[in-house]
Amino acid sequence: MGPDSARVAIVGGGFGGLAAARALRSAPVEVTLIDRRNFHLFQPLLYQVATGGLSPANIATPFRWALRRQANVDVVLGEVRDFDIAGQRVLLGDGSIAYDHLIVAAGATHSYFGHDWQALAPGLKTIEDATRIRSRILVAFERADREPDPERRAALLTFVIVGAGPTGVELAGALAEISRHTLRHDFRHIDPGSARILLVDAVDRVLAAYPADLSARAQASLEELGVSVLLNTSVSAVAEGEVTLETRGEPPRGVPCATVLWAAGVQASPLGALLASRTGLSTDRAGRLAVEPDLSLPGHPAISVIGDLSSYAHGLERPLPGVAPVAMQQGRHVARRIRDQLRGAPAAPFTYRDRGTLATIGRARAVADFGRFHVSGFPAWFLWLVVHVMNLTQAQNRLLVLTQWAWSYVTYNRSARLITDGARPSAESEPGSGGSMH
Amino acid sequence: MGPDSARVAIVGGGFGGLAAARALRSAPVEVTLIDRRNFHLFQPLLYQVATGGLSPANIATPFRWALRRQANVDVVLGEVRDFDIAGQRVLLGDGSIAYDHLIVAAGATHSYFGHDWQALAPGLKTIEDATRIRSRILVAFERADREPDPERRAALLTFVIVGAGPTGVELAGALAEISRHTLRHDFRHIDPGSARILLVDAVDRVLAAYPADLSARAQASLEELGVSVLLNTSVSAVAEGEVTLETRGEPPRGVPCATVLWAAGVQASPLGALLASRTGLSTDRAGRLAVEPDLSLPGHPAISVIGDLSSYAHGLERPLPGVAPVAMQQGRHVARRIRDQLRGAPAAPFTYRDRGTLATIGRARAVADFGRFHVSGFPAWFLWLVVHVMNLTQAQNRLLVLTQWAWSYVTYNRSARLITDGARPSAESEPGSGGSMH
Repeated sequence: MGPDSARVAIVGGGFGGLAAARALRSAPVEVTLIDRRNFHLFQPLLYQVATGGLSPANIATPFRWALRRQANVDVVLGEVRDFDIAGQRVLLGDGSIAYDHLIVAAGATHSYFGHDWQALAPGLKTIEDATRIRSRILVAFERADREPDPERRAALLTFVIVGAGPTGVELAGALAEISRHTLRHDFRHIDPGSARILLVDAVDRVLAAYPADLSARAQASLEELGVSVLLNTSVSAVAEGEVTLETRGEPPRGVPCATVLWAAGVQASPLGALLASRTGLSTDRAGRLAVEPDLSLPGHPAISVIGDLSSYAHGLERPLPGVAPVAMQQGRHVARRIRDQLRGAPAAPFTYRDRGTLATIGRARAVADFGRFHVSGFPAWFLWLVVHVMNLTQAQNRLLVLTQWAWSYVTYNRSARLITDGARPSAESEPGSGGSMH
Repeated sequence: MGPDSARVAIVGGGFGGLAAARALRSAPVEVTLIDRRNFHLFQPLLYQVATGGLSPANIATPFRWALRRQANVDVVLGEVRDFDIAGQRVLLGDGSIAYDHLIVAAGATHSYFGHDWQALAPGLKTIEDATRIRSRILVAFERADREPDPERRAALLTFVIVGAGPTGVELAGALAEISRHTLRHDFRHIDPGSARILLVDAVDRVLAAYPADLSARAQASLEELGVSVLLNTSVSAVAEGEVTLETRGEPPRGVPCATVLWAAGVQASPLGALLASRTGLSTDRAGRLAVEPDLSLPGHPAISVIGDLSSYAHGLERPLPGVAPVAMQQGRHVARRIRDQLRGAPAAPFTYRDRGTLATIGRARAVADFGRFHVSGFPAWFLWLVVHVMNLTQAQNRLLVLTQWAWSYVTYNRSARLITDGARPSAESEPGSGGSMH
């Protein structure tokens, strides 16, 4: 491969970006994968890290490791500052990357719908989010155990999860299991099983993207686990120690609670708006860029946008959802398009092949939608387990995660319940710091 | 057990405190274990977390889990602010714990010998230290890969470890393995194997607490791995990007390096000085409290001090070293003494049974000192592995760590090499933040 081979820059190493890089393995191109982190994150299992079932390293694969046998990829740890469209360069904090083809796969983050609730109601997108949420949950139980006042103790044992999509459902199910089983014998002054777990959503069912029968089964499973599902209910205020809920047709009510977790809105990466302003395009309300049938940006055939940052609606009632299979298929499609183009072949349009979706609710509880077939209960959960473990990129991670799960399944144990990173109760309740012990 | 049973407060859940709590299992006492963290840390393996071989959860056991079957123990997550000696209470940020017997096992932290080098040369005592050091090491390689200037690149690939005790030797060996093997195929612009690893100590041999023949064998093993051992050498200055070394009889010289790790001095927890001031006693230069033959404080039979915070020198040339076996035997001794006292039996003096010490240098390299027998190489390493894995408190952790090690041994892989917690290169080099991608 000489200096004349086409240069492909990929921004973001999530499911879409990594799939594109891998699919370019045997293409006569030089690929540069740019990401702020040095690892690919298997986001669907992030809730397991947040609830102490897995360690961060179990669901993260260093890019350099994942791509070590692919000589035509260079990994750059860096943050994108701007795009020089005319000059065909991605500008980083400390240099720039020239490209002939640019693939932007920068993903999405939480949306608080304009509210400033990040600190009070953390969302779950990064490893740090997950360890922070884990610490918060555990600290709430620890503080409850030492709280003499019954009302304050009840508030410490109340967990509100906003958003009943897959992440919210998974978090609620895992929290129910922790409080009913994992922590059962851990405390002397409280019964962790008395914790209230409220799963709140503004629409009229959980897992709204799934068929109605699976939503109903998921809700029944959650309720069996002890989760209170509050539908048609939105959050109108979040304050320290209290959240205000408004169920349709009822007056607002305050719910005292120490822990609010955000699993509601999604907003595309700010790189979408930046790219739009540089190309004279605009984003939709969620910050996504509409793409051509071949996933390129209108008027910019050298730039493709894939995954959660793109909005693909050609021939569809509504745009494709922001899920891993869409991003991965789009990454592979763009790679194929680039290879075709280098051979002078025309660009084919992208079509999404929906192979079904799976959501888990807890130990041996899940729902799966394969179009004509709907599966729930243990078979769906087992399928979910196989699909997720098989998709963990590193062979070692598969082995470790399986070991961990087999053990957890038998014993209800969650070994990774460590409180780290300054989220200790004293640090939260009193800013001053006294004696020290390790 | 009625309200009249004796109350034992234990400050610190390290090796000493946890051993004391466990040894009181069947005693007619009510135990309160107080710690700032919610988990017991298996510190001897912390260097494996710092070098990406293990995840934090692999070497940490939540106290509540470790003590879940012991009904007479209450775990309190809190920070000790003071001791009320006359009133027999431990004062926390949010309340106090009354005691009839107090066991202080608050451990030790780094000593920089009066220098303010914490930020420039981090030490290795906590989980956060370990993940921070891991990120620093990995970021140095990442930055080197993008650094065009050869001198700056060489500085990024220079790692200085201060202190050639067990921790320094283990860190140096692990770093050598990472650069020579784990990262070998990971970078396109640098050869990680060209990294310089300098292990510096002011005395004339590594592992100075071991017999001289084992020191020599450890040094030979380190040098085989590619570590440069600089003896009779002290650090006279640490600055951003440079450390100044002074080898005895030579003029000081600056060594450009991006990463300095501190494994030199140890200073007892500040709780030692606080306890000394409240009891009218004094500490030694390392902040430790001298104890009576039965491990109680002079003049205060209700207070025992054990582990790294205590200095026990009765009948010995020098005080017992700050290692886990000493702390554990002391914890068990104090528990036995309390039980004896409750039965009216006299307090027996403590005697340490030295069962040998082990230090590892890397893959299949270690040294072991059993008094008359000195072992090195693979047999010592295998012994080290068995002892450490068997001592990991949770059965699941044992299984996971063994799986992880077996895999690492075969493949040289270290899967936990994640850069987390804001130690990313852009965050370090440029305070401003630009675009965002997940």
